[in-house]
Amino acid sequence: MPDTIMSKEPTSNLESAMQMLIKTFHKYSGKEGDKYTLSRGELKELLIEELGSYLGNSKDNEAVEKVMNDLDANNDGEVDFTEFIILMGALTVACNDFFLEYKTDEKPTEEKKE
Amino acid sequence: MPDTIMSKEPTSNLESAMQMLIKTFHKYSGKEGDKYTLSRGELKELLIEELGSYLGNSKDNEAVEKVMNDLDANNDGEVDFTEFIILMGALTVACNDFFLEYKTDEKPTEEKKE
Repeated sequence: MPDTIMSKEPTSNLESAMQMLIKTFHKYSGKEGDKYTLSRGELKELLIEELGSYLGNSKDNEAVEKVMNDLDANNDGEVDFTEFIILMGALTVACNDFFLEYKTDEKPTEEKKE
Repeated sequence: MPDTIMSKEPTSNLESAMQMLIKTFHKYSGKEGDKYTLSRGELKELLIEELGSYLGNSKDNEAVEKVMNDLDANNDGEVDFTEFIILMGALTVACNDFFLEYKTDEKPTEEKKE
C-alpha cells in the first residue's frame, strides 16, 4: 500500500525521519546521470548542503573523496541508496555516542579540541 | 562540539532525521531497566506507537517477538542503539525500493492487495 509510505503525511517522528532520508537522497540523485544513484558531484553537493555543520563545513575535495571512496563499495563511482543509508546510520550512531558521552560527563566547561 | 549535534536546531532535513532517530530511541529506552537499551516492552511500545502504520498496525506479540529476535544480535533480550539503527536502515531501504517500484510502474489504478 504505497499510500502508507510516501504519499501520506507522516504520523510519527520515525516516519518523518525515513521520508526525509528518502526525499533528500532523491533530491540530489536525480540531478545528473543515473537518477537513482549519487555521482561524485551530487554526493559533494549533498554533503555540503545537508551535512555542512556536522562535517565542520569542510568544503575541500579531499574529505568528499574520502567519503566517496569509503562508501562506494562496488567501486563504480556512484553511491546507491543502500550505501547512503549505511553512511547515515554510521553518522547517527557516532552522534548518539557523542551525545551520551557528553551527557554522562556533564562537564560543559571542559573544552574538547579536535 | 556538542552544540553542533543535539542542542542546536537542525539546519537541514538530514540533521532533523538524525536527531529524530536519536530522540525517539531515548524516549522509549529510558522508561525501564537499562536507560540506553530497549527492553522487549519498550521495543513493543516504540514499534506500535511510532511505526504502527508501517507495520500494518499489527499489535500482536508474535510480530514484536520476531523483530526482537532478529534485532537482538547478542541475545541479551535488549536492543541497543546500533541494533535499532540497523532496523531503521533496513526499513528505510525497503520503503525506498517500494517507492521506486511504484513510481516506475506508474499505474495508480492498479490495486495491490496484500
